[in-house]
Amino acid sequence: MSDAILSPTQLARCWEALREQSPLTHCLTNIVVAPFTANLLLAAGAAPAMVDNVHEAGDFAAVADGLLVNLGTPYEDTTAGMRAAVSGATGAGTPWVLDPVAAGGLAWRTGIALELLRGGGPTIVRGNASEVLALGGGSGGRGVDSAHTTADSLDTARQLAAEHGCAIAVSGEVDHLTDGDRLVRVESGDPMMTRVIGVGCALGALMAACAAVEPDPLVAATTATGALTVAAESAIQVGRGPGSFAVALLDELAALEPAGLAERVRLG
Amino acid sequence: MSDAILSPTQLARCWEALREQSPLTHCLTNIVVAPFTANLLLAAGAAPAMVDNVHEAGDFAAVADGLLVNLGTPYEDTTAGMRAAVSGATGAGTPWVLDPVAAGGLAWRTGIALELLRGGGPTIVRGNASEVLALGGGSGGRGVDSAHTTADSLDTARQLAAEHGCAIAVSGEVDHLTDGDRLVRVESGDPMMTRVIGVGCALGALMAACAAVEPDPLVAATTATGALTVAAESAIQVGRGPGSFAVALLDELAALEPAGLAERVRLG
Amino acid sequence: MSDAILSPTQLARCWEALREQSPLTHCLTNIVVAPFTANLLLAAGAAPAMVDNVHEAGDFAAVADGLLVNLGTPYEDTTAGMRAAVSGATGAGTPWVLDPVAAGGLAWRTGIALELLRGGGPTIVRGNASEVLALGGGSGGRGVDSAHTTADSLDTARQLAAEHGCAIAVSGEVDHLTDGDRLVRVESGDPMMTRVIGVGCALGALMAACAAVEPDPLVAATTATGALTVAAESAIQVGRGPGSFAVALLDELAALEPAGLAERVRLG
Repeated sequence: MSDAILSPTQLARCWEALREQSPLTHCLTNIVVAPFTANLLLAAGAAPAMVDNVHEAGDFAAVADGLLVNLGTPYEDTTAGMRAAVSGATGAGTPWVLDPVAAGGLAWRTGIALELLRGGGPTIVRGNASEVLALGGGSGGRGVDSAHTTADSLDTARQLAAEHGCAIAVSGEVDHLTDGDRLVRVESGDPMMTRVIGVGCALGALMAACAAVEPDPLVAATTATGALTVAAESAIQVGRGPGSFAVALLDELAALEPAGLAERVRLG
Repeated sequence: MSDAILSPTQLARCWEALREQSPLTHCLTNIVVAPFTANLLLAAGAAPAMVDNVHEAGDFAAVADGLLVNLGTPYEDTTAGMRAAVSGATGAGTPWVLDPVAAGGLAWRTGIALELLRGGGPTIVRGNASEVLALGGGSGGRGVDSAHTTADSLDTARQLAAEHGCAIAVSGEVDHLTDGDRLVRVESGDPMMTRVIGVGCALGALMAACAAVEPDPLVAATTATGALTVAAESAIQVGRGPGSFAVALLDELAALEPAGLAERVRLG
Repeated sequence: MSDAILSPTQLARCWEALREQSPLTHCLTNIVVAPFTANLLLAAGAAPAMVDNVHEAGDFAAVADGLLVNLGTPYEDTTAGMRAAVSGATGAGTPWVLDPVAAGGLAWRTGIALELLRGGGPTIVRGNASEVLALGGGSGGRGVDSAHTTADSLDTARQLAAEHGCAIAVSGEVDHLTDGDRLVRVESGDPMMTRVIGVGCALGALMAACAAVEPDPLVAATTATGALTVAAESAIQVGRGPGSFAVALLDELAALEPAGLAERVRLG
């Protein structure tokens, strides 16, 4: 694995394209984070649409610019919608992001995550170390928190990325992103991001929006991560606690310019 | 179509009645906007209740003061609840609002919207230009954004209103509302309203609350639109971006007095 | 019923334990309040996880530290998940909280609430006066608001608590909590808590988090109530209306120290 690092200018260009194109970003996500996810996409400049029933999800994924499938609160009917959406996206060439929330820790959704991964060829997979290890066949965490360190998961992440031809983004104190060849570390961010529900899930949606405007999955995933973590560093200056931090995060993301992103993101 | 314009005093009287009566407003809405919708109704002074299962929705709509049916994220089980709710509302004379989110762009829900419209006799229909055109048989937008201008939809809106005996509210930069005879334009508001998820959906709920206390559907729909857009003009002064704007919108709506609404609303 | 009153020190100790142990708090709750509930648990220092499908809810409740079952928007599939979760919790000894939202007013969920109460042996039941009376066989309110005063419900609350070996928390202007023997009144709080959706529902989740770290159900329920009402008294100083109050409530809850809770809570 080479240590080629992306340039901040690549991120700025992707962020600018997101602003100009306002990609229609189709989200099948969970009941806990759907509002925040939609608001974060709007703040970033994307156009969110949450179409998650089995009758419409497939056709819509085929016309959308990017797709997110998040397994936070799966049900029989919405997982049928997810299968339809992934099928529609792969048929039409719509880039899509898999967020296998709590895979490894919970058996039913682990099976669904593996099925979608193997059948659907995602553009980007976003998860914590335990979730990524679970996709590689390992045992998982308890609930939504990772029981493993990022370092534990990097070999698996690289192998999965190479095998499935996608980028894998492993969230943690430092985010690690790989496409099997290159490895990028995003060192921006603030621990307060873990005190607000849905920040990670919304990051997956933002990756789908970036992948809609940027053909290199690693650049798309890194741009989303860089933008959100840089916005978080601004928001922590304004917020008084997790409630006001979440509000400020949307404000700061909306205010983030491509040049500001390039200047402030800390890549390793 | 005459150009009779409602008076701000009529809006103030409706807003005052809402505050005094705190109507029980039954909402069947989508997973993305349910929290914001409930908070906006509470801020306005109404009493929200989201009862959307098929076992209870019909009985509850019969005792509620007003009903909203919003098609944002329909599923098999919740659309069964919607049919029951509309049936309960029409049987008991409960005024109800139809918000056909993304009708035209998505086939399954377009059929449900038409079925509810034709079978249920809504009091008010709220949508963007594409959604209104779809109810009139036209083709729709892509996702939740309108692909048509308000002007495109006004003839259809007038015909639908006359045919179904309801008010039709077409959202846009300037909101247009008609009952088939009269046409009102609400020119208040701010573009930031489109950067927060659920503002339009919550407006539909507020129309249901207003229709619960005001027999003239056009007055009810215009009062809700006027109150929300005037509150938005205050909120934009306070907010730093879409996150803090959404928070301020609730604060300002709660603080809006009938006299302030009458003084500040811009009707055309 | 004796008038033994808990000491503020007991509450401070429970609050400190919550902070130290960060209990995994499993929530099956409704689509309207899920985001706020998760954010409030995170602000308090707990680890929320919303696993509400029938395939996973039972196993997860067995490994979680505490469980909330809230009947706000029940459906066929999620009530199957609730039954599985309660079964998993009781089998494994996981403490759990029942929030029978709108029981009494709505027939279907009243039956489910009674089934879960009788079959599952909850640790704590949280509701308003009408909901508690409904569990005791009385008639209920209209929607989510109580049609009865707290005083009406105290005999029923005491009997239910004794019969089922749990604590019953009756929300109202003054919250009353009993385990059948002792009765505690929490006089802290602010009416603005009723102008934000989900404050009561999130309180039920916070009770589940407290019950995970404190074996006495009455102490757990009172600690959660005390912490949230004291935080509300701080938040009302900061907020300008219901929108900013909700944001400040999360900030203040996150900032609340055990000593501050003991000093400021008003118990009767």
